[in-house]
Amino acid sequence: MIDNTRRAGTATASAPAGIGNIGVGFDLLGHTITGPADRATVRRIDEPVVRITAITGDAAGFDRLPLEAGLNTAGRALIELRERHGLAHGFELALHKGIPLGSGLGGSAASCVAALVAANALLDAPITRDQLYPLALVGEAAASGSPAGDNVAPMLLGGVVLSTPVRVIALAAPRLYCAAVHPDYVLETRRAREALTAPYPLADFVRQSGHLALFLTGLARGDLELVAEGLRDVLVEPRRAPLIPGFAAVREAALAHGALGASISGAGPTVFGWFADRGHADTAARAMQEGFARSGLRSEAWVSPVAGPRAELVD
Amino acid sequence: MIDNTRRAGTATASAPAGIGNIGVGFDLLGHTITGPADRATVRRIDEPVVRITAITGDAAGFDRLPLEAGLNTAGRALIELRERHGLAHGFELALHKGIPLGSGLGGSAASCVAALVAANALLDAPITRDQLYPLALVGEAAASGSPAGDNVAPMLLGGVVLSTPVRVIALAAPRLYCAAVHPDYVLETRRAREALTAPYPLADFVRQSGHLALFLTGLARGDLELVAEGLRDVLVEPRRAPLIPGFAAVREAALAHGALGASISGAGPTVFGWFADRGHADTAARAMQEGFARSGLRSEAWVSPVAGPRAELVD
Repeated sequence: MIDNTRRAGTATASAPAGIGNIGVGFDLLGHTITGPADRATVRRIDEPVVRITAITGDAAGFDRLPLEAGLNTAGRALIELRERHGLAHGFELALHKGIPLGSGLGGSAASCVAALVAANALLDAPITRDQLYPLALVGEAAASGSPAGDNVAPMLLGGVVLSTPVRVIALAAPRLYCAAVHPDYVLETRRAREALTAPYPLADFVRQSGHLALFLTGLARGDLELVAEGLRDVLVEPRRAPLIPGFAAVREAALAHGALGASISGAGPTVFGWFADRGHADTAARAMQEGFARSGLRSEAWVSPVAGPRAELVD
Repeated sequence: MIDNTRRAGTATASAPAGIGNIGVGFDLLGHTITGPADRATVRRIDEPVVRITAITGDAAGFDRLPLEAGLNTAGRALIELRERHGLAHGFELALHKGIPLGSGLGGSAASCVAALVAANALLDAPITRDQLYPLALVGEAAASGSPAGDNVAPMLLGGVVLSTPVRVIALAAPRLYCAAVHPDYVLETRRAREALTAPYPLADFVRQSGHLALFLTGLARGDLELVAEGLRDVLVEPRRAPLIPGFAAVREAALAHGALGASISGAGPTVFGWFADRGHADTAARAMQEGFARSGLRSEAWVSPVAGPRAELVD
């Protein structure tokens, strides 16, 4: 689908927060949630450059983000858009951060996707969301050094998305709900990545792959029993959980209140659970917050359909 | 589904050969083929024992198989059937091996499944194929030491099957064809397993998981492009391929003749490819045989629908 064009002037787009990995699909699966979002306002300029004019926001720490376009996920993606599509003109970009930094909710991806969707609307010949994906991957790599699409892909397409380096596929999403709880705790992505560097025995892969296969089959068939059987991360979560104070209690709170499964969103420290209905998700979200509170951590919680929104132009 | 019962006397069942792993689903995915099969004739006896009376066959090396019931996959499965279901009676078992030993075509699994299907027909209260699965896993472990269901599960259900230690799921199988080529070469399962013991970096797993996800999504949607994108083993095949003389040439022959993908069946040395139609599969099978011939190996080839048969009672 081609977004509406606004060939000159300015466009603003909003991109939602996302749950990366969905526990069982490391670097491959993600979905968006209603709740926090990043906003990008892009102005088409005659100069052949990309320039970030401002980063503002509700999110703590936004003033630490790089204003140098090549080092910023959104700036880097627009540079790639100019280069790959041979644009003569440039862009000025202002970001407003609504997604907490370092939360595991895909804030850097959301800025990147919002900027691309806004800039695309200013092109003489706008491109499709699928065509924005490789550009978003390049932008995302500016933050993480890794080209995983598990956050940018669902922000581009909405809902639950499978992404590989060359392919995005929107998956069927049964009418499930997600509770995401973000503790007020700084977990550096670098530390979260380092926890995964030691190699893995094949048996762990087989177990995790089996869960992934059940999860995907469950989603495709709308079979919640299969989804629940599959929604278990035996590969990454055991290594990252010790980095998140209270994780075990929070996960257990989710399961005790009906979660089909619960795990870490992205690199953490946000913990999410999937639920068959909004009532269970609401109750569980409060219990999950109490879990963090017992570790002395304040937290924010959001409840959202798993089939969350995609990035959109805003007026 | 409950098989027809033959409460007394003797029953014979046949179980087809199978393609284990299907390249991208190590220990998880498999399908059956029309072609070689094992046969089990089971007699219900009053003595509370399981006894193997004979192993005969067309398959070279069948006379090396253990006649001790507890050490034989079929015997072990019937012992488990007696114990778990509290049977007062026993079984006498004769096996006829049609599947080449050590071929990677699931011969030990086929004997086990054929014995279970035959014995089940002799029970006072026969059980379902799903209920036979855990028994087949125990039998299979007698040969491989591992409880993988990628061979026994498709032999029980037919077609393409996803199996985990506790679950079997028949998958949609588009109208594809398989060419399987078995070279006259002995590759010990032990050596094939040993090649996999060194641990794996997470990045390899992410690549393989992405392929698995594309493959399963392609099967579920009948999208052959996705199936082809997914049917690539970057985890196990690189370690086992050097154990199979001519593997690279055989795989390339399959791909050059239209294979969606090609890899090793089970622990090898059989190489298989998947094709959109029988014509391509037939042509490719001959080219794959020529590939082995260039390494000085004679071979046998079979072409079959991917949606192969399940084990059945025979008269």
